[in-house]
Amino acid sequence: MPLQDRFTAEVTFYVRYAETDAMGVVHHGSYITYFEEGRSNYARQRGSDYASFEREGYYLLVAEVHARYLKPARYGQRVTVCCWINELKSRSLTFAYEILDADTRDLLVTGESKHICITKDGQVTRLPESWRTWDV
Amino acid sequence: MPLQDRFTAEVTFYVRYAETDAMGVVHHGSYITYFEEGRSNYARQRGSDYASFEREGYYLLVAEVHARYLKPARYGQRVTVCCWINELKSRSLTFAYEILDADTRDLLVTGESKHICITKDGQVTRLPESWRTWDV
Amino acid sequence: MPLQDRFTAEVTFYVRYAETDAMGVVHHGSYITYFEEGRSNYARQRGSDYASFEREGYYLLVAEVHARYLKPARYGQRVTVCCWINELKSRSLTFAYEILDADTRDLLVTGESKHICITKDGQVTRLPESWRTWDV
Amino acid sequence: MPLQDRFTAEVTFYVRYAETDAMGVVHHGSYITYFEEGRSNYARQRGSDYASFEREGYYLLVAEVHARYLKPARYGQRVTVCCWINELKSRSLTFAYEILDADTRDLLVTGESKHICITKDGQVTRLPESWRTWDV
Repeated sequence: MPLQDRFTAEVTFYVRYAETDAMGVVHHGSYITYFEEGRSNYARQRGSDYASFEREGYYLLVAEVHARYLKPARYGQRVTVCCWINELKSRSLTFAYEILDADTRDLLVTGESKHICITKDGQVTRLPESWRTWDV
Repeated sequence: MPLQDRFTAEVTFYVRYAETDAMGVVHHGSYITYFEEGRSNYARQRGSDYASFEREGYYLLVAEVHARYLKPARYGQRVTVCCWINELKSRSLTFAYEILDADTRDLLVTGESKHICITKDGQVTRLPESWRTWDV
Repeated sequence: MPLQDRFTAEVTFYVRYAETDAMGVVHHGSYITYFEEGRSNYARQRGSDYASFEREGYYLLVAEVHARYLKPARYGQRVTVCCWINELKSRSLTFAYEILDADTRDLLVTGESKHICITKDGQVTRLPESWRTWDV
Repeated sequence: MPLQDRFTAEVTFYVRYAETDAMGVVHHGSYITYFEEGRSNYARQRGSDYASFEREGYYLLVAEVHARYLKPARYGQRVTVCCWINELKSRSLTFAYEILDADTRDLLVTGESKHICITKDGQVTRLPESWRTWDV
């Protein structure tokens, strides 16, 4: 569980069967989608969902993603994705993630992703005003 | 919404960004995963989740799947997956699905999937007793 | 192998690990993507790839998809997707598929998908002239 | 293109439509699967595919993955995944990746993944002898 004092959004869901692989556990790539769902949920909890962000003509390009796998999750398990903003600049931001077992709160995966704000035609631009106070 | 009088399980979740495609809508293959999540939820609501079904040595092989796409879903939308059992035989069963817009209850996708009960070593077998009364 | 005399496009690739599931075999939803890759390859072999089709302002909406699973594929296996056009109308068409083990030519999965031709703004329209002779 | 002198395996394939997202480009999570296909191909070119590695009772757990996105890929594009071993220890190894446009050789994505060798019951173990000379 993030020890820092920043606003942290949590979302909990069941592992889907399609997200597992032949090793019998959740495929490492599926957590990248869990991270994404974590930041979708973050924006929803902040009252400014990413769908309307895109409708206003902004996109958050993924510039970098990093994941560390500590314990495997399995089908049947419920996981909680914690997401918060690590760093917020005028044109970019970094989200951090912790994925936990929803019941035991065991830490399964940690990660970060760096994003750059662009317009529809691909120009780097400033984050909208409403997002620029999210680093608290 | 299914008009029949069989037990119907509903689960609601947000469309994930990863589930969309370059057409701007949910990729048609993603609904196959929604169906699967619909029947996972069905088993959970019946009190006998599929994870423990597998731990007891049973598998539900997918023999057939069919989907009809009526209206596209988009990122930002919440969808509801309705799932019920259409036909239940001693060694096989058919699930039916309706995927709705969670807010408007507009019908987006319908489908069915046929499953055969097998053991770990691939032998066709009878469904466990606890599942054999689910056609009501 | 399709016994009919229509133009059939074949593409062969390795199963990816991410496409498997906890049952140890290729997840049934992954074949929907294999079908799609089969028709992408069909269009490429016809000399009119789907990417340029979209650039010209057309989209092939998926109206229906149907898959029958005969034998499982596993990681490490090479599969061949055979794809041909079953039915071609002025505004819609149906692709058919057979997925084979690339080495033994064992039939693994069969299926069809029905598509409707639309414009960028969602209007049903006639298939471009170059596609309308593909039913031979 | 990797400037180092280590054995580098290349594999080229078309972007699949299912791998794109509503931004019109390949979803950032899809490249994690491309990396995986890159190391599958690496093992095949080394004459010791990962499928038989698993049949011998070994697994390569993914401990960490990191991707940097430089340029987007689109549907219709062919990409080349270059993969080599960056570091090889007795119980772990690190793969590095470059994903290029297959035609222009433009660099699109770079990354690394760290793996730990385990047995079927989850014990950390030494890499098999045949893999231990791959750092050249």
